Amino acid sequence: MKSITDVESLAKRRGFFWMSSEIYGGLSGFYEYGHVGTLVKRKLENVWRSYFLGLNDNFFEIEPADIMPEKVFIASGHLENFVDPIAKCRKCGTEHRADHILEEFLHENFEGMSAIELTEMMKKHKVRCPKCKGELSDVEVFNMTFPINLGVKGETKAYLRPETAQGVYINFLQEFDVTRKKLPLGLAIIGKTFRNEISPRQLIMRQREFTQAELQIFFDPEKIEEHPRWDEVKGYELLLKPVNEANVVKMKADEVVKKLKLPKFYVWHMVKMQQFIIDVLGLPKSRFRIRELSEDERAFYNKYHWDVELELESLGGFKEIAGVHYRTDHDLMGHQNLSKKSQEVFFDGKKLVPHVLELTIGIDRVIYSLIDIGCTEEKDRTYMKFKPCLSPFLACVFPLVNKDGMDDKAREIYDSLKHNFDVFYDDGGSIGRRYARADEIGIAFCITVDGDTLKDKTVTVRERDSKDQKRIKIAELNKYLQEKLL
Amino acid sequence: MKSITDVESLAKRRGFFWMSSEIYGGLSGFYEYGHVGTLVKRKLENVWRSYFLGLNDNFFEIEPADIMPEKVFIASGHLENFVDPIAKCRKCGTEHRADHILEEFLHENFEGMSAIELTEMMKKHKVRCPKCKGELSDVEVFNMTFPINLGVKGETKAYLRPETAQGVYINFLQEFDVTRKKLPLGLAIIGKTFRNEISPRQLIMRQREFTQAELQIFFDPEKIEEHPRWDEVKGYELLLKPVNEANVVKMKADEVVKKLKLPKFYVWHMVKMQQFIIDVLGLPKSRFRIRELSEDERAFYNKYHWDVELELESLGGFKEIAGVHYRTDHDLMGHQNLSKKSQEVFFDGKKLVPHVLELTIGIDRVIYSLIDIGCTEEKDRTYMKFKPCLSPFLACVFPLVNKDGMDDKAREIYDSLKHNFDVFYDDGGSIGRRYARADEIGIAFCITVDGDTLKDKTVTVRERDSKDQKRIKIAELNKYLQEKLL
Repeated sequence: MKSITDVESLAKRRGFFWMSSEIYGGLSGFYEYGHVGTLVKRKLENVWRSYFLGLNDNFFEIEPADIMPEKVFIASGHLENFVDPIAKCRKCGTEHRADHILEEFLHENFEGMSAIELTEMMKKHKVRCPKCKGELSDVEVFNMTFPINLGVKGETKAYLRPETAQGVYINFLQEFDVTRKKLPLGLAIIGKTFRNEISPRQLIMRQREFTQAELQIFFDPEKIEEHPRWDEVKGYELLLKPVNEANVVKMKADEVVKKLKLPKFYVWHMVKMQQFIIDVLGLPKSRFRIRELSEDERAFYNKYHWDVELELESLGGFKEIAGVHYRTDHDLMGHQNLSKKSQEVFFDGKKLVPHVLELTIGIDRVIYSLIDIGCTEEKDRTYMKFKPCLSPFLACVFPLVNKDGMDDKAREIYDSLKHNFDVFYDDGGSIGRRYARADEIGIAFCITVDGDTLKDKTVTVRERDSKDQKRIKIAELNKYLQEKLL
Repeated sequence: MKSITDVESLAKRRGFFWMSSEIYGGLSGFYEYGHVGTLVKRKLENVWRSYFLGLNDNFFEIEPADIMPEKVFIASGHLENFVDPIAKCRKCGTEHRADHILEEFLHENFEGMSAIELTEMMKKHKVRCPKCKGELSDVEVFNMTFPINLGVKGETKAYLRPETAQGVYINFLQEFDVTRKKLPLGLAIIGKTFRNEISPRQLIMRQREFTQAELQIFFDPEKIEEHPRWDEVKGYELLLKPVNEANVVKMKADEVVKKLKLPKFYVWHMVKMQQFIIDVLGLPKSRFRIRELSEDERAFYNKYHWDVELELESLGGFKEIAGVHYRTDHDLMGHQNLSKKSQEVFFDGKKLVPHVLELTIGIDRVIYSLIDIGCTEEKDRTYMKFKPCLSPFLACVFPLVNKDGMDDKAREIYDSLKHNFDVFYDDGGSIGRRYARADEIGIAFCITVDGDTLKDKTVTVRERDSKDQKRIKIAELNKYLQEKLL
């Protein structure tokens, strides 16, 4: 996709997403998924679930509340540290995110820099207000967590969670108790996260309300140098961008352990993350990298912090969409210290507070990437290259014309498929226009009922990417589509 | 289930749900779903989707933001009317919901009564503080919508949505445009809703954060007296409790139209709602009724307002879990008036603002009901009677003993099933204890690998409710389980 405006216009025209509450002029940082976007989002979430929970029999999904009490975020450090750097224009009054305007100005990443460093940097480069060219204030920090006051007088302080992870940590002991009482234990949340972003931007890439899919793996830190299924991945080639390398390097998992001194338990999960993005979602290796964050950039509690990035044409470079983070025992110890409730478990003959490896994905960012990368322009058409498992509708069914029994037959086929797949019935306009509509939202197969169908009980199935057309027996359609989903 | 304490204890012990943030003493009105509860919730949501979206080709799901701008709730009337009546104890200071303490005192429903009426009623019956017997203040109203301030200074006023419905209304025109441009158009949301309830209670029945599954059907009001598929339902027997009847009456859909003067379009959807609860969820007719709300009880904009209620032993009577509401053009006209954007569409040769029929279900309330009604105590066991499509795990796989190759074989069977179904592997404790654990969370089938399995390639499949055991060929397990899901 060439530009962000192209993404925005297609997304709106075809029912993927658009700015929230448009009839009231929109609400900055919030988006609505239309019916096509919602179908893609559901599929992505389900594919995520089945892949990540499938990594181990002891991985489960839970659903804690979005609103959590103040103490959770005192313990986690969010109330103290979860801040954005703000610079205000002295002329027009606009509040800017200091690191973002610096990034736009100097084309470098300034996330994680302190307010003082940012102020110095802005003075050094004489950065001024991007809106009115006015002088900017010194940088101040601003907490991004949304407070919620509960009760008639708002007497109970709570917050909308700024990450799903804390919902897992505070429920860890209870889940350890009701599952197998074994490590590793994986607990996942797919859910909403809320941040009072000062400059939400890039459509659904940086919103104030967004969906994360996160898996927190609790493990014995003494076993970090091993993984029982290491052999499956040791020869797998990772695409890495370490801090001290200028470009992406290809390295086998075994080499990564040796050369970068990363533990096997960590690298095994890096491989699984790369395989998910490349093999399951079908995104291209050529636009993929796992980038190591410098100490300045990463959260202070992360011992290892690598982010998955995709190169997105419409945003002019690599953007973070996921991460593999070794959070140590930072969170459980924080909760243990504040709550005075021991977070120790007994496992393998000893007592321990487990460490945490976090695999996190921004669901909205993946959807953006699927559209940016998937959108393919040929001279006579535009189509969205989604894998069948992510197509909003796997197939659509057309009658060639709305008469001679073709419409009834098409309905009958549609009805027989709709219990097993998301399918769409379309009888509006010419076949050419229906193909075009289906292509633009990434429907994988178009099934046309024509005059021959009534004679020989076959239909034409047209495959989106190749435009190849095949005659398939109606009786075999179900099986044909089922196989394409694998 | 005999009491609310029984539900609470089983729900916690078995991983269904428990109070939120327990390590910090809990947060009133918020619950966490554990891994078992989350599986049931996902299944319920998927069953809801496939049933309600399957009612019409022109019904779709969308996913708007949870946070919406102030104008939405000015237009909808929530900021003015979405209030709870509060009485404060002059002695201990506790704030009570006036209608709830009256209900506990007089065993009648007082929802919807005005503050003045409630004050009079409390004085007449000399109601005092349930906590300390102190004198109560006059009743005042309190708005239940949670405000959210966006931006550095909180300069933009927004709210967490107190119902999902408004997210549909403000996106109606955009979705009409990107779908078939036809009525009826159905738009559904399954998502979170937030209300600052003064007295959250009854576990997940009345929370401050909860999940609704709502379908808003936009239709031409001139066609309210008809439904193209009326014949399918006309002889179906509804279980109704009209305002002017003391008991439930059984009435065929045709009779309902004639005797109660309800329009066919409305009654058709009442039937579909009853069929969903009884046939799809498998809840018993003997505990089901659709109750007409009196004018005092119902929202002022609802012309017809019937609630689905289930009789729950642990809560001592019928409780609302769903509703069928004819909201007329109240919401679209409210948004048209405030936004000055016409909500008219052109359809069937004329311009019109559609009317709305709302089908709404409280997902958490259904889960509570499934547990209350499903929990069955026999002399030697307790089991949860969930339909296979709602069982957290459809089946579990046991090796009889963890040796002689039975464990490997059981693993192999488990691995072959886990891509198609939610299955659980259990090799802890005696077979008897494993059956007991499986029964208590409602796993439909237990598959045991024993000595004979290695010889004749069969396993024992034990059906939860009947305890019947059958030998099934391993090769046929997949098909066997698939059929049980239908």
